[in-house]
Amino acid sequence: MESLNLNKHISGQFNAELENIRTQVMTMGGMVEQQLSDAILAMHNMDAVLAQQVIDGDHKVNMMEVAIDEACVRIIAKRQPTAVDLRLVMAIIKTISELERIGDVAEKISRTALEKFTVQHQPLLVNLESLGRHTIEMLHDVLDAFARMDINAAIDIYREDKKVDQEYEGIVRQLMTYMMEDPRTIPSVLTALFCARAIERIGDRCQNICEIIFYFVKGQDFRHLGGDQLDKLLAVDSSVKPE
Amino acid sequence: MESLNLNKHISGQFNAELENIRTQVMTMGGMVEQQLSDAILAMHNMDAVLAQQVIDGDHKVNMMEVAIDEACVRIIAKRQPTAVDLRLVMAIIKTISELERIGDVAEKISRTALEKFTVQHQPLLVNLESLGRHTIEMLHDVLDAFARMDINAAIDIYREDKKVDQEYEGIVRQLMTYMMEDPRTIPSVLTALFCARAIERIGDRCQNICEIIFYFVKGQDFRHLGGDQLDKLLAVDSSVKPE
Repeated sequence: MESLNLNKHISGQFNAELENIRTQVMTMGGMVEQQLSDAILAMHNMDAVLAQQVIDGDHKVNMMEVAIDEACVRIIAKRQPTAVDLRLVMAIIKTISELERIGDVAEKISRTALEKFTVQHQPLLVNLESLGRHTIEMLHDVLDAFARMDINAAIDIYREDKKVDQEYEGIVRQLMTYMMEDPRTIPSVLTALFCARAIERIGDRCQNICEIIFYFVKGQDFRHLGGDQLDKLLAVDSSVKPE
Repeated sequence: MESLNLNKHISGQFNAELENIRTQVMTMGGMVEQQLSDAILAMHNMDAVLAQQVIDGDHKVNMMEVAIDEACVRIIAKRQPTAVDLRLVMAIIKTISELERIGDVAEKISRTALEKFTVQHQPLLVNLESLGRHTIEMLHDVLDAFARMDINAAIDIYREDKKVDQEYEGIVRQLMTYMMEDPRTIPSVLTALFCARAIERIGDRCQNICEIIFYFVKGQDFRHLGGDQLDKLLAVDSSVKPE
C-alpha cells in the first residue's frame, strides 16, 4: 500500500500510528470482502458449512470496527491532528461504519441461506448470485480506491451503482412474475426478494465510501448533491491532490 | 435543555461552541421527527401535498447534517477536545448520521405514497401507520434521552425495538395472506411491504442512537454485544455519571 501524501509530522511516531490505522482499515476491508464473497457463494451453492462460517466470522468484523474506532479517538485525543490528517481520521471512522454494515449483510444473507433457502429456491438464486458478484466487485474496487485515495476511480465506482440498481429492479420484476404464476411460492420468493434488496444496498454503501474519498481528497462534503451537481463539481478538477 | 456535566473549560467560548452544536443536533432531531410524522400521515391519508412537502424538506435535513458535521470537525481541529468533550463530539457525529438516514426513510415513504399508493392500498396501510407511530415514539424518546444523556431511558428504548420487530413480522405475515388470496394484489402489496421494512429499520436506527448514549455515558463501546452481555454490562452500574 503506497503511503498517502499526508502532512509531514515532526513525530515519526504519529506517522506510524496513522499508517497503522490505515493498514487496519484495509485488513478489515479485505475481511468484509471475503465475508461477502463467501456469503454469496454459500447462498448460491446451499453450502451450510460455509454459511455458518460467515455467521461466526461476523463477530471478528465487528470487533475490528470497535478497535479501529477506538484507535481513531485515541489518535485525535493524543495527537490532535488537523487538516488532511484529521480528514483522514474522520474518513476512516465513517468508512469502517459502512464496512461493518456490509459485513452485517453478509451475515444476514448467510443466515437466510442456512435457515430458509431450500432446493426449491435454487432457480431464484441465479440472478441474486450475479447481483452479488456485481457488488463484490464494487466493494473490491472501492477498497482499492480508498487505499490510494483515488478520486477518479471513486467517480467510476460511484456511477456503477446505477447498474446495480437496474439489475436489482430486473430481479424484482422477475421474482414478481414467479409469485403471480404460482402464489404458493410467495413466502419463498419474498425471502429471495429481501436478500436481493440487502445485496442492492451494498452498492449504496460503496457509494457512501466513494463520497468519503471525495471528502478526503477535495476537503469538501459531497453528500446529498444531486447527480448533475456532483458531476459538475467533480469534473472541475478531478486530479487535485489532498492539500 | 439542561447542560451536560462536561469538562470545565478555561475557555467559556469552547463551552458555548459545544452547547451550540448540541442545540443544532436537537433542532435537527426535531426536524427529522416532524418529517417522519408528516410522512406517515401523508401515507395514511393519501395526502399528496403533505407528501411533497416532506420530499422537499429532506434537503434541509441533509444540509443540517453536513453543517453539524463540519462544525464538529472544526471544533476538533480548533479546540482539540479530549475525554468527555471528545466523546460528545464523536457521539454527535454518529447521531446525526443516524438522524439523516431516518430523514431519508421519511422522504422515501412520502415518495412511495405520492407515486405508488392508490385507494386500493388503504386497507394495507392501517397497520403501517400503527408501526410508524411506534417508531415516531421511539425516535421522540431517544432524542429526549440524547438531550439528557439519560442512560436509563436509553436502555428502555433499546429494548422497545423488539416490539417494533414483532409488529413488523405480524404485518409481513398479514400482507402475505393478501397476496396469496389474490395474486393480482402482489405488486401493490409488495410496495407496502417495502415501506413496512423501511419503517421497521427506524427502530434499529433508534437502537444505534441508544448505543451512542451508552458510549457517551459509560465511555465504552457497547455495539455488537449480545442482548445478555449488554444486560449484564448495563445492569452493573446504570446510574454512573460521565467522567
